[in-house]
Amino acid sequence: MLDKFPFLLHGGDYNPDQWRHVPGILDQDFRLFPLAGINSVSVGIFSWAAIEPEEGRYTFAWLDEVMDRCAERGMAVVLATPSGAKPNWMAEKYPEIRRRNPVGWCVEPTQELQAGRHNHCLTSPVYRAKVAEMDRRLAERYGRHPALALWHISNELGGECRCPHCMQAFRDWLRAKYRTLDALNEAWWTGFWSHAFSDWGQIVAIDTTVEGLELDWRRFVTDATASFLRNEADALKAVAPDIPVTTNFMGFYEPLDYNRLAKYVDIASWDCYPPYHDRPEQTDAVAAGTALAHDLCRSFRKQPFLTMESSPGPVNWMPTNRLLRPGVHRLKSLQAVAHGSDSVQYFQIRKGRGGCEKFHGAVIDHVGDESPRMFREVAQVGRDLQALQPVRGSATPAEVALVHDWENRWALRNSQGPSAVAKDVVGTGLLSNYRPYWRRGVPVDIVSPADGLSDYKVVIAPICYLVQDGFAEKARAFAESGGTFVGTFLSGVVDAHALVFPGGFPGPFRDLFGIWAEETDYLYSDERNAASFAAGNALGLSGTFALRDICEVVHLRGAEALGVYARDFYAGAPVLTRNRFGSGQAIYIAAHGGTDWYGAIHGALIARLGLGRALAADLPANVSATRREKDGRTFTFVENFANEARTADLGPVPRTDLLSGRTLAGPTELPPYGVIVLEG
Amino acid sequence: MLDKFPFLLHGGDYNPDQWRHVPGILDQDFRLFPLAGINSVSVGIFSWAAIEPEEGRYTFAWLDEVMDRCAERGMAVVLATPSGAKPNWMAEKYPEIRRRNPVGWCVEPTQELQAGRHNHCLTSPVYRAKVAEMDRRLAERYGRHPALALWHISNELGGECRCPHCMQAFRDWLRAKYRTLDALNEAWWTGFWSHAFSDWGQIVAIDTTVEGLELDWRRFVTDATASFLRNEADALKAVAPDIPVTTNFMGFYEPLDYNRLAKYVDIASWDCYPPYHDRPEQTDAVAAGTALAHDLCRSFRKQPFLTMESSPGPVNWMPTNRLLRPGVHRLKSLQAVAHGSDSVQYFQIRKGRGGCEKFHGAVIDHVGDESPRMFREVAQVGRDLQALQPVRGSATPAEVALVHDWENRWALRNSQGPSAVAKDVVGTGLLSNYRPYWRRGVPVDIVSPADGLSDYKVVIAPICYLVQDGFAEKARAFAESGGTFVGTFLSGVVDAHALVFPGGFPGPFRDLFGIWAEETDYLYSDERNAASFAAGNALGLSGTFALRDICEVVHLRGAEALGVYARDFYAGAPVLTRNRFGSGQAIYIAAHGGTDWYGAIHGALIARLGLGRALAADLPANVSATRREKDGRTFTFVENFANEARTADLGPVPRTDLLSGRTLAGPTELPPYGVIVLEG
Amino acid sequence: MLDKFPFLLHGGDYNPDQWRHVPGILDQDFRLFPLAGINSVSVGIFSWAAIEPEEGRYTFAWLDEVMDRCAERGMAVVLATPSGAKPNWMAEKYPEIRRRNPVGWCVEPTQELQAGRHNHCLTSPVYRAKVAEMDRRLAERYGRHPALALWHISNELGGECRCPHCMQAFRDWLRAKYRTLDALNEAWWTGFWSHAFSDWGQIVAIDTTVEGLELDWRRFVTDATASFLRNEADALKAVAPDIPVTTNFMGFYEPLDYNRLAKYVDIASWDCYPPYHDRPEQTDAVAAGTALAHDLCRSFRKQPFLTMESSPGPVNWMPTNRLLRPGVHRLKSLQAVAHGSDSVQYFQIRKGRGGCEKFHGAVIDHVGDESPRMFREVAQVGRDLQALQPVRGSATPAEVALVHDWENRWALRNSQGPSAVAKDVVGTGLLSNYRPYWRRGVPVDIVSPADGLSDYKVVIAPICYLVQDGFAEKARAFAESGGTFVGTFLSGVVDAHALVFPGGFPGPFRDLFGIWAEETDYLYSDERNAASFAAGNALGLSGTFALRDICEVVHLRGAEALGVYARDFYAGAPVLTRNRFGSGQAIYIAAHGGTDWYGAIHGALIARLGLGRALAADLPANVSATRREKDGRTFTFVENFANEARTADLGPVPRTDLLSGRTLAGPTELPPYGVIVLEG
Repeated sequence: MLDKFPFLLHGGDYNPDQWRHVPGILDQDFRLFPLAGINSVSVGIFSWAAIEPEEGRYTFAWLDEVMDRCAERGMAVVLATPSGAKPNWMAEKYPEIRRRNPVGWCVEPTQELQAGRHNHCLTSPVYRAKVAEMDRRLAERYGRHPALALWHISNELGGECRCPHCMQAFRDWLRAKYRTLDALNEAWWTGFWSHAFSDWGQIVAIDTTVEGLELDWRRFVTDATASFLRNEADALKAVAPDIPVTTNFMGFYEPLDYNRLAKYVDIASWDCYPPYHDRPEQTDAVAAGTALAHDLCRSFRKQPFLTMESSPGPVNWMPTNRLLRPGVHRLKSLQAVAHGSDSVQYFQIRKGRGGCEKFHGAVIDHVGDESPRMFREVAQVGRDLQALQPVRGSATPAEVALVHDWENRWALRNSQGPSAVAKDVVGTGLLSNYRPYWRRGVPVDIVSPADGLSDYKVVIAPICYLVQDGFAEKARAFAESGGTFVGTFLSGVVDAHALVFPGGFPGPFRDLFGIWAEETDYLYSDERNAASFAAGNALGLSGTFALRDICEVVHLRGAEALGVYARDFYAGAPVLTRNRFGSGQAIYIAAHGGTDWYGAIHGALIARLGLGRALAADLPANVSATRREKDGRTFTFVENFANEARTADLGPVPRTDLLSGRTLAGPTELPPYGVIVLEG
Repeated sequence: MLDKFPFLLHGGDYNPDQWRHVPGILDQDFRLFPLAGINSVSVGIFSWAAIEPEEGRYTFAWLDEVMDRCAERGMAVVLATPSGAKPNWMAEKYPEIRRRNPVGWCVEPTQELQAGRHNHCLTSPVYRAKVAEMDRRLAERYGRHPALALWHISNELGGECRCPHCMQAFRDWLRAKYRTLDALNEAWWTGFWSHAFSDWGQIVAIDTTVEGLELDWRRFVTDATASFLRNEADALKAVAPDIPVTTNFMGFYEPLDYNRLAKYVDIASWDCYPPYHDRPEQTDAVAAGTALAHDLCRSFRKQPFLTMESSPGPVNWMPTNRLLRPGVHRLKSLQAVAHGSDSVQYFQIRKGRGGCEKFHGAVIDHVGDESPRMFREVAQVGRDLQALQPVRGSATPAEVALVHDWENRWALRNSQGPSAVAKDVVGTGLLSNYRPYWRRGVPVDIVSPADGLSDYKVVIAPICYLVQDGFAEKARAFAESGGTFVGTFLSGVVDAHALVFPGGFPGPFRDLFGIWAEETDYLYSDERNAASFAAGNALGLSGTFALRDICEVVHLRGAEALGVYARDFYAGAPVLTRNRFGSGQAIYIAAHGGTDWYGAIHGALIARLGLGRALAADLPANVSATRREKDGRTFTFVENFANEARTADLGPVPRTDLLSGRTLAGPTELPPYGVIVLEG
Repeated sequence: MLDKFPFLLHGGDYNPDQWRHVPGILDQDFRLFPLAGINSVSVGIFSWAAIEPEEGRYTFAWLDEVMDRCAERGMAVVLATPSGAKPNWMAEKYPEIRRRNPVGWCVEPTQELQAGRHNHCLTSPVYRAKVAEMDRRLAERYGRHPALALWHISNELGGECRCPHCMQAFRDWLRAKYRTLDALNEAWWTGFWSHAFSDWGQIVAIDTTVEGLELDWRRFVTDATASFLRNEADALKAVAPDIPVTTNFMGFYEPLDYNRLAKYVDIASWDCYPPYHDRPEQTDAVAAGTALAHDLCRSFRKQPFLTMESSPGPVNWMPTNRLLRPGVHRLKSLQAVAHGSDSVQYFQIRKGRGGCEKFHGAVIDHVGDESPRMFREVAQVGRDLQALQPVRGSATPAEVALVHDWENRWALRNSQGPSAVAKDVVGTGLLSNYRPYWRRGVPVDIVSPADGLSDYKVVIAPICYLVQDGFAEKARAFAESGGTFVGTFLSGVVDAHALVFPGGFPGPFRDLFGIWAEETDYLYSDERNAASFAAGNALGLSGTFALRDICEVVHLRGAEALGVYARDFYAGAPVLTRNRFGSGQAIYIAAHGGTDWYGAIHGALIARLGLGRALAADLPANVSATRREKDGRTFTFVENFANEARTADLGPVPRTDLLSGRTLAGPTELPPYGVIVLEG
C-alpha cells in the first residue's frame, strides 16, 4: 500500500505547530532525525487552529515547510486530518457541534463546554461539513506531494453524543432496523418493567436497564463513528484517490467495534502502550497480552499493519510510570514487527513544553539533543529496522483462530449476574486461551464471528455469551469438516438482541458440544475447585488443576468427559468435555483456571493436531518465538522478555540472525531482553 | 386474612405479560406448577403498559386468562397494582410526573428521564389520579374473582422526589408540624451557620448540614409514601372492601419507616434475599441476620406474615452470585416459616428472556422444563409445605423485645462524629444483641418505641441514640414494674429533633441506668480493649472479653459495675453496669465486642430470668430452634445451617417430625442443612 | 499587636447566638470561664442571621451583652465578620450571589442552592456591598469597645465560583496579565490539542487539560479571595483603624496561596487539628507534621502567630475520632506555643445542641458543667499559659529555611506523569526534609520563593518543580556568598507558566547543582533501590539507605557524587551530589527514601555547619526541643510525644521549668506526654 516508501516506517507524531514561535526548531529536529534513524513523521494531528486560526483563514505555510523538508530527505509523511479537536472559534460560533451527554443517571443530556479533545458531536451536519471542507483543502494541497504516504483520519476515535441530532439519528437507525415498534419492543423485551415504546420519539439512549437498547446504542455509536470516518475518507479520496487511509485504533478499546470500522480503512494501525515495567511476575502476561493485541490488529485485514504510536520511554498516564530498562524499548518495538507490523511509530517525536502530554515519552526529550539514553535506544531500533527491511510486507499464516466479538463484550458487560471476572472477555476469555499458543510459538489469528473459519485447524470462541445469527451453524460446519472447535463456560447464552436462548445452554451450541450446562457457580476470590482426569482420556491429560472464579455444572448429552470436578456438590461432574462431530470435534472448557489449566488443554491440542510452531523445541520461560513469511523466505523472531539471560534451542539448521549477522543454531543464549531474527 | 385459601402459599412473581407473543407459554407454565407444588402466583407487577398500552385503551384479556386458569386449579392469585413503573406514553404526555432530584450536592433538582423503574413523583396529583383509576378498574374487574387472594400494592416502595409539588407538600407538612418558623428554627437549630429561615418558601429539602431538616425530610418521605399507598388502598377497598392489601417490604431498608407504613396494610410481607453462600465463617451471621429480619416482619402486626419474594437459586445482583448448595433452598424457605411466615413466595416463577433480571433465580429456568436441580429443590419445598399445613396461622409468643426505630438510624447516619461501626445500628446494635437469643432458641419481638412493653420480661434498646418523646418514661415504668431493660453505648444522646440532651448522657435514661457516660472512645479497627469481671457480680460473669470499635467511659451514679475495662487510661472504669430500678433492673453495655461478649451477657440474663427456649438443651453451633404455637399445638423448627452434620438434643419426650414422619427424641443427628419440625 | 491584652490568649469560638432562646445560658458560661482559665472568646462567626434576621433590621443586643460581659472581666474578644455564611433571606432575594460551579466535567456551571456554608460568589458586587455594610456597622458599634482585641474576617476562607461575574473577572485578570491573546496562547501552550483562543470571551475556567489556564485560575482564585478579604479589611479599618485584622488559615490548605493572603492581615492565625491518636508508629510523623504547620504560620509574618482553633477533645470529622489520652491536650496546646503561637484558642467553647458540629470537642460539653475530664485538661492549659506569660511575643530565630510555594504544588498536582508520592510536595518534599531538623531541635523557617534568603545558613527547596522567575538567581547568589542550598529530585522542571525548561533538568539550577538529571524512575510501592557511599565523601556519610518511589538518574556536570545507587541499571550513578559554588555549596538529593536517609544527610549538614540546637545533646525518640527568645531571655520547650516516659539531657546548666517551678539539669525524665519549659 505504501509503495512509494518501500521501507519499514520509523517515526511518529510530530507537532511543529506547537513550536511555531520558536525559531530554528525545525533545523534542530531535522538534524536529529537521521541520527535516530527516523524516516517518517505523522503531522497535523489536532492542528486545526494552526491551519485555520479563524474561520476561512488558512495558514498552511508551516505545514508546507515540514512536507517539503521531508520530501527533500525522502521521508514519508503520515498526514492527519485535524478533526479530533475542533478549534475554540468553531465551538463558539456553532455551539450545536458540542457534545451532549448526561451528568448523572437518566437526566437530560447537558451541552459540554469546549475543553479537552474529542468533544464534538458525531452526527452534526455543521461539523461534518467543516471537516469535509478541511479535508478537501488538505487533499488539494498535499494530495500529490512527494512526501505524502498515508492519510491518518482524526485520532483515536472515541466517545459518543446524545444531542437532539444524535437522538434523531439513533431513532432513524432503529426504524431502519426494526421497521415497527412491535418488532423493537419484542427485541428489547420491553414488557419487562413496563418499558414498551408506543412512539419512536419516546426513545432516548439512556437506560441501561433495557439491555437491547444499550446494545443497539453501542452499535449505533460504532456506525455513527464509521459514518464520520467515511465522511472524511470520501473527502480525501475524492481529491487524492490513490493515497491510502488509516485511523489509529486502541487495541481492544471496548466502546467501538473495530471489526466493523476496519472495513473503512486501507491499512489497519494501532497505538500500543504496554507496561513493560520489569515486574517478573507480570512479564509473561504483559508480553502475551501485547502480542494478542498486535495479532488483533494484523487480523483486521489479514495483512501487515502499522504500529502508529508507541512510547520511547515511559508514558505519562499510568499511576507508576517506570523507566524502560535498557533494551526494553528495542524488545517491544521488534515485538510489533514480529507480529506483523511494518512500522515502529511513536507518540511522540518531540516533547512539548506545555500541554498535558509534556512528560510522555518522545524521541527528542526536553534537553533537546541526542544525549539521552532513550535517544540512543531509538537509534538502535532505527538500525535494527534497517537490518529487517526484508521482513517488510511479509505475512503470518495461522492455523488457529480466536473469535472475538465486540457485541459479545457489550452484552455481557451490561448483563446483571455474571461476576466481574466473567465479564472480562479479553482477559478471562481471550488471553487465557491465547497464552498457551503464544508460549509455544503457534501463530493465532483473531477473527470476528462474521469471518470464514475454513482456513483453520482450531477455532476457539471463549466466553461466546452472545451468539451472532448464523455463527453456531458456521461452527458446526467447521467441526463437521474436520476442525477442532473449542468453547468455554458462559457460551450460547443470548442471541443478537441479548435475549436468552430457551431450551438450555449452551443454546445453539448444544448439539455441537453435546452437553447441557445447567448452572454456573461463581466462586469468591479465595475459593478453589479442582479438575482431575481419568486415565486414558482423549487428550491424554493427567494431574490436578486448580479452578477458580467460574465453575459451570455441565451434563453430558453425547459428549465424553475428559476431566471432572474434584470438589463440592458437583464433584464428578464434567469440567472438560469432547464431542466428536462429523469428522472433527468440539471441546468445552466448563471452568476457569490458571495458566497451567489452559496450557495443559491447548498444549495437548497443539501436540495432537501437529500445529506448526515457530521453533520446534519448547521455549524457556518468558521467551516467545514468532514467524513471518514472504516469497518463500521465513523470518523467525525469538525474543527474551526476561531481565535475565535465557537459552533457547534454535533448531539444528544454522541460520543467519539479521540483527547481529551471526549464524546461529541449537541452544543459544539470549541476553536479558535480547532479540534474534533468524532468516531461512 | 386469606381465609379463601387455607394453605401455606407457595408461588411467586409471575410475568406472563412479558411472554404474550409466545404461543403456548401458559400451557407450559401451568403444566409445571403442580410438579413444583406451586399453589399461588403474584401477577401484574410492572404491567401497566400491558394493561393500558395507550391512554384509555385497556387490554385485560391476558390477565383474565391467568386469573381464570388459576381459579380452575384452586390457586391463589396475589394481584399487584402496576404503579411501580409508569408507562412511556404517560411519562411523555405528563412529564411533571417524572421524579426530580439533584445531580450533585446542593443544586437545583433535575427532571429525570423515563428509565428504570420507580421513577414517578410521590405527590403528583396527575399520577395519583392515574393510579387510582387503574386500581379502580382492577378492583372492578377482579375484586370478586374466585382466584383473588390479596392485593399487592405497587412493588418495593422506595425513592423520593424533590419536584415543586413535593417541595410544596414538604413545606405544608412542616407548617402543620411546627406552626411557626420560630418553632422550626429552634427545632432545627438554625442558628448554626446562619441557617435561620425567615420564609417558608426558602426551605428546599437539600441540606444535609441541617440535621433537623434532613430528619424531617425522611419523615415526610415516609408520610408521602404512606399517602401514596393509601391512595391505592382506598381505591381498591372502595370497590372490593374484603380483599386484604399488602405491599412488599425490604427488611431493614433504611429510607422508609416501615413501623409507620405497616399500619396501612392488612398483612405484612417482605422480600428476603440472604447470601447463604456456604462460607462457614459467615454461616451464623447470615442465619441470625435473616432470622432477625423475619422477626421484624412478623412483629409489625404481631401475626403471621408473608415471604413475598425469595430466590430459588442465586440472585443476579450480588458481586459473587454463588449457587445454593443442595438443601439450602429448603433450609432458608423453612426458616421463613419457622419465624412466622405463612408463605414461601419467589421472585420469580419464570426467568424472562430479556430485561435486567433475566439471570435472577426462578422456579422455571431458561431450559423451560422440570429438569434443573433447582426445580426439584422447589418441588421439595412444595412437599414440605404440604406437610406443614398445620403450622399455618400459628403465633410466636416472645418474652424478649428488641427496640428498633428508623428515625434513630436516620439521625445517627446523618450525624458527624460517630464511626461507621457505631452508625450501623442494625449490625452493631440489633444483630449483636439478637444473636445470643437466636443461638439459644429464645424468641424475640422487634418493636418500635411506640409499642407497649408490658408483655415482655426483657427489653433491649441498642444504640438508642435518638429518644422519642415518652420512651424513657416507658422504659422506666417497664423496669419499675419488674422488667429488665438493657441499653448500650450511644444511647440517650438526642431528642426527636436530633437536638442533644443537655445534662449528661445517657440523657433521659440517666436515672434508669444510674450512670453518666462522659466520653466515647472510637478505636481503630486493629485496636482492642478488654472487659474483666469481679468475682460475685450480679450476673455471675467471669473471664475476659475483647472489646472493640466503641468504648464509652462511664461513671456510676447509683448503678453497680458488673465488669470494668482492663486497659488504657480508663482501665477500671465500668464497662457493664446494673441498676436496680423499682422491682426491676437496667443493664448498660458500655462497649462493643464480639459474639462472646454479647453472648455472655444475654446468656446470663436468659438463665437467671428463666426465659423460655424452643429446646431446653444447648444447641450445637450453627443450629437454630424456633417455635410456633396454635390452639395448644406447638411446632418446633430445628435447622442446621452448617454444611456438616450436627447433633441436637431434642429433649426426652418423643415427638413427630412433620417433615419425615419419624418420631424423634434425645440427641438426634441433623444432616448438612437438615431441618426437623417437631409437633407436640 | 494586641497590646490592650498583654497575655497569652486562651479561649475560642463562642456561639451564644445559637442559644438565644435558652435563658441563663450566659451566666452558666461566664461562671465556667474563670474555672477553665478562659480569657478570650471569638464571637460572631456565621452569625449573620442573628445580627440581621431580615434585610435592614439589626439585632445587636445579644452581642452587646457578650461584649460587655467580657469587658467587665477583662477578657479579650476576637470579633468575627459573619461573611462566611450568607443568610437565607439574602440568597432568596439576590440569587446571583450564590456560587456556581459545574457538576461533572466541562459543563455549564450550575447555580447552587442555599446549603452548607461558604456558598457565596467571591466577586459579586451585591454580596461585597452587603458584607462591607455589615462590617461597617460592626466597626461602628464595637470598634472602640474595650473588649475588642482583633477582627477575625470571615472564617476559613475557601472555595471558588464560576458564575458570569467571576468568569468576566477572570478574563479581565488575564487581560491585565497577558495584554494580548498571542501572549496568553504562548504561555498556555494552546497549540496543544488546538486550544488556541481567538477571543477573550472563549475562556471559561474549566479545562484541566490546559495547565496554564488551570494555574492562572488558581492564582485568580487567590487574588479574588484576597480582594474579598481586603474589601472587608478596608470597611473595618475605615472606621476602626487601630484594631488589627486576621483570618484563620488552615495549614497547608492547597487551594489558596497563603503566602499572598498573609500580606493582607496584621496577624497570622490558623486552625490546628492534628490526629494525636496514641498510635506509636505515627507519633513522630504527626508531631513533626504539626510542628511544620505551626512554623509555616509563624513564618508568614516572621512574628508570633495565633492558634485560632484547636480541639479540646476529639474532632467530629475524622473516620475514627479517638479520645485524647490524658495530657495530650496540654502537650499539643503547648506545642503551639513552643513554635511561636501567642494563643491557645479552641473550636469550640460550648457544644451546640444541634448543627453538624455538635459532637466536635469543646471546653463546655453537653453535660454543661465543669465535671468532664476534658474541662480539667483545658483548665490545666489555662494554668500553664499563666505560667508561660513571659514567653508572649518572643521570637524564633532560624538558620534554616525551607522553601514552600503554593504555585509549585498546583502545577505539579495538575501535571500528568509524576506519581502520587511525587505530587505530595508537603509530605514527600517538605516534611521529609523538615523532620531531621525537628528531631535535632534546630529551628526552621518556612519561606516563599519571594522571600530573602540571606539570613540563613541552609536553604532547602524540596521538589522545586516550578521555578518562579528570579528564584534560581537568588539561590545562586545565596550559595555564592557561602550558603548551603539543598535541592531534590523533580526540581527545575517548569517555569511560572508551567512550561518545561528546555536544555536539561534541573533547568535554571543546572549550574548551581552541577548536574544533569536525565530521567526519573518511579518505583512501585513494593520496590526499593539503595544508596551507598564512598569512603571519605564530603559529608562523611556511610552505610546503606533504602530508596523508594522516586529515583532520578543524574549525571555529574561539575558536582561530585557523595553517594551512588546500589542497584538497577543505573547502579553507580550519583544519588547525592555536592557542588561547590562560590564560597558555598549546593547539595542535590536525587532519590526519595525514609527518615534514615534524610536524617543522615541533614544530620551531617547540621553537624558540619554547626547549626544551633535547642538542646545540645541528642534527643530520645519522640521528644522535641524548641526555643523562643525575647529580650535576652531564652525559653526552651521540651516535649515528650510518646505515651511512655523518656529521658532527655537538659544540659549542664540548671534552669527553671516554668511549668513546675523545679530547677532542672542533665538527664531528666519526662513522663508520658510530659512537657518542660526551661527559662534561661
